[in-house]
Amino acid sequence: MPSEFDLIRKYFQQPPRDVRPGDRRTRRVSLGIGDDAALLRPSAGMELAVSTDLLLEGTHFRAGADARKLGHKALAVNLSDMAAMGAAPRWVTLALALPVADESWLQEFTKGFFALAARFGVELIGGDTTRGTLTICVTILGEVPTSLALFRAGARLGDDIWVSGQLGGAALALAQPGSAAAAKRLDEPEPRVELGERLRGLATAAIDVSDGFAQDLGHILERSGAGAMVEYELLPRSDDLQRIQDRKLQSRLVLCGGDDYELVFTAPQSSRGEIAALSSDLGLALSRVGSIQSGEPKLQVVDAQGRTMEVGRGFDHFAP
Amino acid sequence: MPSEFDLIRKYFQQPPRDVRPGDRRTRRVSLGIGDDAALLRPSAGMELAVSTDLLLEGTHFRAGADARKLGHKALAVNLSDMAAMGAAPRWVTLALALPVADESWLQEFTKGFFALAARFGVELIGGDTTRGTLTICVTILGEVPTSLALFRAGARLGDDIWVSGQLGGAALALAQPGSAAAAKRLDEPEPRVELGERLRGLATAAIDVSDGFAQDLGHILERSGAGAMVEYELLPRSDDLQRIQDRKLQSRLVLCGGDDYELVFTAPQSSRGEIAALSSDLGLALSRVGSIQSGEPKLQVVDAQGRTMEVGRGFDHFAP
Repeated sequence: MPSEFDLIRKYFQQPPRDVRPGDRRTRRVSLGIGDDAALLRPSAGMELAVSTDLLLEGTHFRAGADARKLGHKALAVNLSDMAAMGAAPRWVTLALALPVADESWLQEFTKGFFALAARFGVELIGGDTTRGTLTICVTILGEVPTSLALFRAGARLGDDIWVSGQLGGAALALAQPGSAAAAKRLDEPEPRVELGERLRGLATAAIDVSDGFAQDLGHILERSGAGAMVEYELLPRSDDLQRIQDRKLQSRLVLCGGDDYELVFTAPQSSRGEIAALSSDLGLALSRVGSIQSGEPKLQVVDAQGRTMEVGRGFDHFAP
Repeated sequence: MPSEFDLIRKYFQQPPRDVRPGDRRTRRVSLGIGDDAALLRPSAGMELAVSTDLLLEGTHFRAGADARKLGHKALAVNLSDMAAMGAAPRWVTLALALPVADESWLQEFTKGFFALAARFGVELIGGDTTRGTLTICVTILGEVPTSLALFRAGARLGDDIWVSGQLGGAALALAQPGSAAAAKRLDEPEPRVELGERLRGLATAAIDVSDGFAQDLGHILERSGAGAMVEYELLPRSDDLQRIQDRKLQSRLVLCGGDDYELVFTAPQSSRGEIAALSSDLGLALSRVGSIQSGEPKLQVVDAQGRTMEVGRGFDHFAP
């Protein structure tokens, strides 16, 4: 039976290192896993973005969920927070509770986690391993040049509202299991890290879609003290979703479906050309779906006939 | 029924703030709770120490544990990691899962958490709230002047081994409930933050006692590639512990009891005077208990007659 310390050495120290006080001149991380804390050297002229997410079996994923996909998703949701701030992700800590020291599970989990970390140049710097119900807590640290971070509070009257990729796919996978594409959206979301970094100085506000488009745009409106008008037919959705006959179900998935991890952002109308060029550069659809209005921080969604649609509620962990 | 967002506003935004991009010139935190990530500005010439701890009901505390004490302890164990690095604690994130939105529990928990945070000038910058089995994940960030952090790897041949405060109190509270002093050690440990900061440039290695003196000193020995000789009678313990007749039980509590959050550190013999002065300055016992030896990274503990004692195992979450 491997000990807690064996497991940490075997699965989380990649590559293994043994840093001593004298060695720490060239690396951005002075000291990683294996001491009481990691030591980092943030770059000059940068602000540090910090975010944390807690994923629990039963609440955020099913018992028996694929370990590799969980490793991917646990990191992806945190990368998405960095994207929404316009920050470049750098370092991550991972706290993990496991019912037993299941090595095949750990092997798969760390495979998914480290594959995504490598793609974005993120280094695992520390963590905690303990016994208990499967629980994953990731804290991510990123860097953004001083004064260039994207906030929820910056939307201005007349700004366009944009959405990356497609909405509702993750919610579709829950509502109607069977579509492989939808399942991939739910289990292996693609954080829009490059988009977030490229939106610095271009977007006026940004957020990632974790609780549903309407609710997350709502946070921008509240913080910015503005309203919004969105045209339902402009909201990007997959063919799978487009084919759903039940219009109420379709609109609920598109407007209120969580877990998509697309970015919703606002930008002045004068930036339309630049955003179109960015879309083509990244090979990622960026859809203009509405505009910021004066008045109460309220979202109005209109259908193809210009009629106001009812917008349901997004996800709230403590909703009855 | 309050929503997730109401709870965050009510209990975790203290004081409430509404920072906009323009406001962020004077504060060390550009943006706190309420966006996709917090934004920090670490000081120039400092390294950033980062540590994370996961506490689960059933594993780390009993169901029905006092909420205020839990709030204290969840932060204390992280402050202790900063102390062991010689870092000044600055910022903290809190991820919390709760079975229900129990406001009286939240009120008590945040009271314990914020009281300790205020004592050490630590700011809560972000977090995550979700529904599930009671789970607490705290990530702490601290600052330490470049090259002055305390590592596990720095112990040198001939160094003295020191212990702060007293050992075994927390383990005694578990083994023989009834002592109020011991219960306080278990439930409301006092992180040795000032000591850690004052040990910069003085100690050669340091660690905090979370898994037991023998095991935690063992980490220093492994990392430093050295052995140690410790005199059992010199190990500091409370009167309660001293009174235990069962010598085996007493030595197990003193050598292997976890959760004390005292510091174990090494320092050259030439620093004895300075350490005595520091002890009197802080009003905190600092006991010299042994020395670093050449050879295998192995701990030898000897009794008053100079006989080698058997040292049990410390805490391992995955031990059978």
